[in-house]
Amino acid sequence: MTSREPTGLQTDLYQLTMAQGHWSLGRADEEAVFHLGFRRAPFKAGFALACGLAQAVELVEGLGFSDQQRAFLATLTGNDGEPLFDPGFLAWLGEMKPTVDVDAMPEGTPCFAHEPLLRVRGPLVQAQLLETALLTIINFQTLIATKAARIVAAARGDAVLEFGLRRAQGLDGGLSASRAAYIGGCVGTSNVAAAAAFEIPVKGTHAHAWVMSFTDEEAAFSGYAEAMPNNCVFLVDTYDTLRGVDRAIAEAVKLRERGHEMVGIRLDSGDLAALSKAARQKLDDAGFPEAAIVASNDLDEYRITALKQAGAKIDVWGVGTRLATAYDQPALGGVYKLSALRANADEPWRRMVKLSNTPIKTSTPGILQVRRLSRGGTSQLDVVFDEAFGPPEATGSGPVVARSIDPLSDAELTLPNDPEVTSVDLLEPVLRGGRRVCELPSATQIRERAKTLLAELPEGLRRFDDPSPYPVALEPRVAALKRELIVTSEG
Amino acid sequence: MTSREPTGLQTDLYQLTMAQGHWSLGRADEEAVFHLGFRRAPFKAGFALACGLAQAVELVEGLGFSDQQRAFLATLTGNDGEPLFDPGFLAWLGEMKPTVDVDAMPEGTPCFAHEPLLRVRGPLVQAQLLETALLTIINFQTLIATKAARIVAAARGDAVLEFGLRRAQGLDGGLSASRAAYIGGCVGTSNVAAAAAFEIPVKGTHAHAWVMSFTDEEAAFSGYAEAMPNNCVFLVDTYDTLRGVDRAIAEAVKLRERGHEMVGIRLDSGDLAALSKAARQKLDDAGFPEAAIVASNDLDEYRITALKQAGAKIDVWGVGTRLATAYDQPALGGVYKLSALRANADEPWRRMVKLSNTPIKTSTPGILQVRRLSRGGTSQLDVVFDEAFGPPEATGSGPVVARSIDPLSDAELTLPNDPEVTSVDLLEPVLRGGRRVCELPSATQIRERAKTLLAELPEGLRRFDDPSPYPVALEPRVAALKRELIVTSEG
Repeated sequence: MTSREPTGLQTDLYQLTMAQGHWSLGRADEEAVFHLGFRRAPFKAGFALACGLAQAVELVEGLGFSDQQRAFLATLTGNDGEPLFDPGFLAWLGEMKPTVDVDAMPEGTPCFAHEPLLRVRGPLVQAQLLETALLTIINFQTLIATKAARIVAAARGDAVLEFGLRRAQGLDGGLSASRAAYIGGCVGTSNVAAAAAFEIPVKGTHAHAWVMSFTDEEAAFSGYAEAMPNNCVFLVDTYDTLRGVDRAIAEAVKLRERGHEMVGIRLDSGDLAALSKAARQKLDDAGFPEAAIVASNDLDEYRITALKQAGAKIDVWGVGTRLATAYDQPALGGVYKLSALRANADEPWRRMVKLSNTPIKTSTPGILQVRRLSRGGTSQLDVVFDEAFGPPEATGSGPVVARSIDPLSDAELTLPNDPEVTSVDLLEPVLRGGRRVCELPSATQIRERAKTLLAELPEGLRRFDDPSPYPVALEPRVAALKRELIVTSEG
Repeated sequence: MTSREPTGLQTDLYQLTMAQGHWSLGRADEEAVFHLGFRRAPFKAGFALACGLAQAVELVEGLGFSDQQRAFLATLTGNDGEPLFDPGFLAWLGEMKPTVDVDAMPEGTPCFAHEPLLRVRGPLVQAQLLETALLTIINFQTLIATKAARIVAAARGDAVLEFGLRRAQGLDGGLSASRAAYIGGCVGTSNVAAAAAFEIPVKGTHAHAWVMSFTDEEAAFSGYAEAMPNNCVFLVDTYDTLRGVDRAIAEAVKLRERGHEMVGIRLDSGDLAALSKAARQKLDDAGFPEAAIVASNDLDEYRITALKQAGAKIDVWGVGTRLATAYDQPALGGVYKLSALRANADEPWRRMVKLSNTPIKTSTPGILQVRRLSRGGTSQLDVVFDEAFGPPEATGSGPVVARSIDPLSDAELTLPNDPEVTSVDLLEPVLRGGRRVCELPSATQIRERAKTLLAELPEGLRRFDDPSPYPVALEPRVAALKRELIVTSEG
């Protein structure tokens, strides 16, 4: 996303020191399996929306180290002043090409805590080196896509535009945010670079500075209408908002006489509920019932809901800071955990867990896949299973049985063995031996997928306050192994 | 920071539609003055630390539009389906080269609400096009540098390392965050790409996955010590933390026999106060009083303060998510306001304000500079003045007089005309006619500047809870004009 140079330095130093460790112990090419997931959905939401895979793929495909990058690594020293990295190791890094397999949930898939969103299988060192940047990319885009889905839900069918670039965390953070916001359901962005890079609709008209650059508001609106008659959304709050609406209407009348229609007006300050109602009345009375009222100013799902409850007459919601930074929770705490390892393909897998003080946070061992079971077009249950053990089974005419995700609980989750129950395995092959084995969809295609799959979530889960939990369970053999590993892991 | 292509598309669409508007009205080259600043310091802090200028300069120097970029703009349409942009305008954009003047506070300067951090003077369209990305860059880096300064202050002389890349907002967000965190006082980063790009010290040893990849913790520590004997910070909490400390000590003894010293241990979970005290005792008893205890796990200035109050024996603080995202306030609401305009150099300036419902948020008119007055090595008062009107004056032996920043207040701020009072004007020339006229210091030089200037702030201002306010005032002629413009601006 940023450059075409090899991506190997896009990592934490400890990934490289561990890499040298494995290399020097002859373990660099042991076969490892890591899973990327999160342990709690952001914003106290019932779900997250997987996003960022396209950029993650670019990262993996770019794995490597240029001469210049290795020369930098050669300058680093340890606590004795001697080089940190062995020249033999750096030479070996110079030969590195990505050979890992990646399976992942397609972007736009609703996902839940304790599920793998992405799985990396391949040489231990490569899989380890990729950890940091995979987390950076997927954590952030998943966070923003989820926030956007919530805001779009609050707008209940109104258009939501993303305006966040100026408050984004770096220009590339803004680029990623605009992409993820569109995937989460925004109809477009103000960010021109993102529009160009990802074919996202882009919108914009004028700012307060436009109005201020003229001696009065009337001249400002006239000047704009003269220059861009097919793109008139007049920002009416530079001085007195409702007088601004009157001037916008006066200009709209003149525009119509010249064969153009004003698109609408924008409110960016003050009591948006009261102002939008007054503006709507003025616009309707003047013969502009189709003119849209765009509102912006620190909006998010909660403020949009409150404005709607207050009867605001707003047609388009411009959302910036609180979307592009996920203001109320600006990081998704995604993790990337080693879950299986073997010296080579002739050896058996050693499956492992990362213990935690909180049992529910203990990682799940194995080579995992997620099966989503649905009935009547509604998702019912996700089951995490080990591909080597096989998927959850419906025995005879009995129910599909799964175990609570909590390793200390005996609770069973079941779904009747019903012909109406359909299932889909969510992790799809993306890279094999470092090469792409799937088509990456466009942002618009991903947005459509997200819209479809979000509509399949149970109603109570889509509430953005206090959603009902969605059941995620472990296939019984995975649950049994996880419990056994917790007991036997070195304490 | 991201690429060498022209930076013109790094903007909101409305900057381009306004640009066409000005162009079509023959106003593109009117001379404009914009100022970038903020209206409230982040984190309820008493100050912010200016940061991001180096990347802002790259942005301005790169202003322009490639053929491909203009071809993209040519595809955009208005509400009548016709092209949004005039071919003549797009051709004109293709010729654009930056010619603006930029003056700015050097990076690492403590700054305050209502002050210009950066001033752009030049052709109206160029200055307008730069708004969005200047805000993106300076908002974010200033935010993170400020957060870092607070965290470093809480650590009271202990080293703080920035570990935030995996939770950053895009890879470039992570790169900027690591740079700003270092400038704010961190001693280094885990981010290898940032270290290479900005010559920042980089640190890292191993993760839980290293330990898990071995059959037991002892083998993991031995393996690491064998591979990297000069970089041993053992992460001791994969299984039982205090047993982990014992195993680290056992390995440290063997290391010492081989002529190496363990750097220390790292704690990443649990009760960091209790565990660090117990670990310190074990290390001291075993003859490793120099071994450092590194701690990480959702740290910020408040948690570090609480841990210190609880008597934690922590030497190095690894701070990630809460620093790299400025978790408790992930955006600085910087603004960029037009404050003066003239048709050409023969015309008088028209100075203007952007009104706000809150008078204190009304922008300040003019061509502004900030004079900082200090006495006895401590900053006392900042005065915003108009370069055309001249700096605040000490009349005779009387005091330096300035006016409250609140345009509705008559309050005077004065500083005796004391030979001990020194002053410095904070905005320095950076670009003239689009060309760099200053040396940009290294990140390390900026970090030193920040350290020096932070130490000059009044003690009460540096408190991170409930700081005493720092006085920022308007030179009396600026204050009078601002008030007049508020009264006469179209209401």
